[in-house]
Amino acid sequence: MSEHKRPVPRVGMVGGGQLARMTHQAGIALGVDFRVLAGSPSDSAARVCGDVHLGDDRGLADISAFAKSCDVLTFDHEHVPEPVLREIEDGGAVVRPGRGALRHAQDKLRMRTRAAELGVPCPRWRAVSAIGQIEAFGAETGWPLVLKAARGGYDGKGVWVVGDSAEALEVLQRAEENGVQLLAEEKVAFRRELAVQVARSPYGQLAVYPVVETVQREGVCHEVVAPAPGLDDDKATAAQQLAIDLAHALDVVGLLAVELFETADGVVVNELAMRPHNSGHWTMDGARTSQFEQHLRAVLDLPLGSPRATAPYTVMANVLGGGDPDVYGRYIHVMAKDPEVKVHFYGKEVRPGRKIGHVDVVGDDPDDLLARARDAASYLRGDQG
Amino acid sequence: MSEHKRPVPRVGMVGGGQLARMTHQAGIALGVDFRVLAGSPSDSAARVCGDVHLGDDRGLADISAFAKSCDVLTFDHEHVPEPVLREIEDGGAVVRPGRGALRHAQDKLRMRTRAAELGVPCPRWRAVSAIGQIEAFGAETGWPLVLKAARGGYDGKGVWVVGDSAEALEVLQRAEENGVQLLAEEKVAFRRELAVQVARSPYGQLAVYPVVETVQREGVCHEVVAPAPGLDDDKATAAQQLAIDLAHALDVVGLLAVELFETADGVVVNELAMRPHNSGHWTMDGARTSQFEQHLRAVLDLPLGSPRATAPYTVMANVLGGGDPDVYGRYIHVMAKDPEVKVHFYGKEVRPGRKIGHVDVVGDDPDDLLARARDAASYLRGDQG
Repeated sequence: MSEHKRPVPRVGMVGGGQLARMTHQAGIALGVDFRVLAGSPSDSAARVCGDVHLGDDRGLADISAFAKSCDVLTFDHEHVPEPVLREIEDGGAVVRPGRGALRHAQDKLRMRTRAAELGVPCPRWRAVSAIGQIEAFGAETGWPLVLKAARGGYDGKGVWVVGDSAEALEVLQRAEENGVQLLAEEKVAFRRELAVQVARSPYGQLAVYPVVETVQREGVCHEVVAPAPGLDDDKATAAQQLAIDLAHALDVVGLLAVELFETADGVVVNELAMRPHNSGHWTMDGARTSQFEQHLRAVLDLPLGSPRATAPYTVMANVLGGGDPDVYGRYIHVMAKDPEVKVHFYGKEVRPGRKIGHVDVVGDDPDDLLARARDAASYLRGDQG
Repeated sequence: MSEHKRPVPRVGMVGGGQLARMTHQAGIALGVDFRVLAGSPSDSAARVCGDVHLGDDRGLADISAFAKSCDVLTFDHEHVPEPVLREIEDGGAVVRPGRGALRHAQDKLRMRTRAAELGVPCPRWRAVSAIGQIEAFGAETGWPLVLKAARGGYDGKGVWVVGDSAEALEVLQRAEENGVQLLAEEKVAFRRELAVQVARSPYGQLAVYPVVETVQREGVCHEVVAPAPGLDDDKATAAQQLAIDLAHALDVVGLLAVELFETADGVVVNELAMRPHNSGHWTMDGARTSQFEQHLRAVLDLPLGSPRATAPYTVMANVLGGGDPDVYGRYIHVMAKDPEVKVHFYGKEVRPGRKIGHVDVVGDDPDDLLARARDAASYLRGDQG
């Protein structure tokens, strides 16, 4: 931390989404100055934060000016281009995580390359830029296979499952048109998806959360069960160790989320994120230290909080927007039916399929909790009447 | 609730102290619009809230204008004069709790009179305006006795323990000079002090929290142990029932805190507060629904949340200002020593003796928790080096 003259340090978060909103909540308890760079006053965080700077949360000029006003800069998304990060770091800003770490979350090709160097278990993968390369890869791994944009994507997508060479060619051509580098990955025959979060401070302290099960539908996280039910101790420990090793090797500061596939043999890494993550929302009600408080403690180089779960199980279910935007009008039913459900609503405009909030339910029986969380989320969406 | 055209209702809280600050935190999760009327931009809540109106939080003009912009009005203090409340209610604002309830928290004479009508156990008391009356009361109850200002007080005080007639006369004369009505109360020979909180909604739903032990020093709350260790079930149930009966009889909407003395025979009522209360800060980390969320749910006429404790015990210790204002600089020691301690810092200017934050520790053994909470609070104050 640079020597600050303020009674408490000022943390600037680039991006005004729900992650910034919930980090603001945690910052209130810690009593730190929390400032957000948001694109619009209607952004989720901008609606509630007392210190909002409006600007382009991906552009050099605005981020640079914002960084100068803060003691430490962090992010609610990974979309700040690497050249922008370099300029800001070269200008003397304290950026956590730094660009040397962040580029592994921004570029899947770099991540896979580095993971391979580190011996971290991953699906088989290959950088591909010609249909012949994809066909050769498919001949090795079998079809369908997965094509991923190394960075970004197009048409709002970055991952495509393709069943044959013709489908692959279509993706490849559109990628070329959009200047997008592709990599091919085997479609892992997984039992289920898992995730593990670890926090790391500049001092080098690490705190790892329990391994959770994530339930995705159409590429969108729907539910998280913490801890992952029935996961054997060896696999859980291996997954936590893998996250610790990655955080250390990549020099992550703040939170690292590692998304995993559980296979018959063990776990393999799917994706990385270097920020608070949807798979950690359960910590707000189910862990001694929420992921948002933990992220702040890490980027401020404070000692990390206990990542311990406070109950046998916590289930998180995302609330997606439905056809009727009056979510608040449905609170009464959800709250009356289950006084234990914790509602987190992000103040975003309701659009079908958009993540607009989540619910947490804490208790002893994961099946019971899952049923109750699903019921509440479904009701808030407006599926029941 | 008046019919609002907003997607979510707007709650206005009068007063910008730490109670408003922590209510704002809870409002973020609920996704409601939360607006605060604060006297200064440096007020605890004004530093973090996205929607701050500056004005006189006790005066008619500013509160009236503020009320017009909100769907429901509530309070972080009880200092809004009754005539102001009347005007605002007569103007059509939804005020929760309403003045009919609030006056029992504002005026100890009214509270005692009403409690007596309801048969609620209280210390012996009498309205006094002449030294002869105090002497007669002292002859009945014994000395020392307690003199209280019915409303407000003077020299920053509202409660005086007087050992004899000469001391009583001094208080009486100063009270007369300041236009303050006094009441005399017996000095209860209590075992310890307890508190119980209940929430009540306009619909009439009630949710009562576990009875807690409060540890006061020089009239200031230092620690809270939830639930009160070793309290027998009959007394606990009686205390909870008493709070429920009072909330119902006084038509409280929102939170009611009842401060109690535990005696050999049972419990007697000391004071009432109709807002989130220091005795309920433990709920932020130790109950399924924090008192701040519960207050919002109650004033919004939403179904109330579960008031259940999430662990066997929670201990809260207030952090008071000490000689060295660099509280943040001491975080590192407290957090490194005990990663389970939850720090809540209010962003207020540090002055000796002022409540500037609190810590919560949750676990199984109240003595262990109390030692750890005291240690953390003492360290944050700056008593240890």
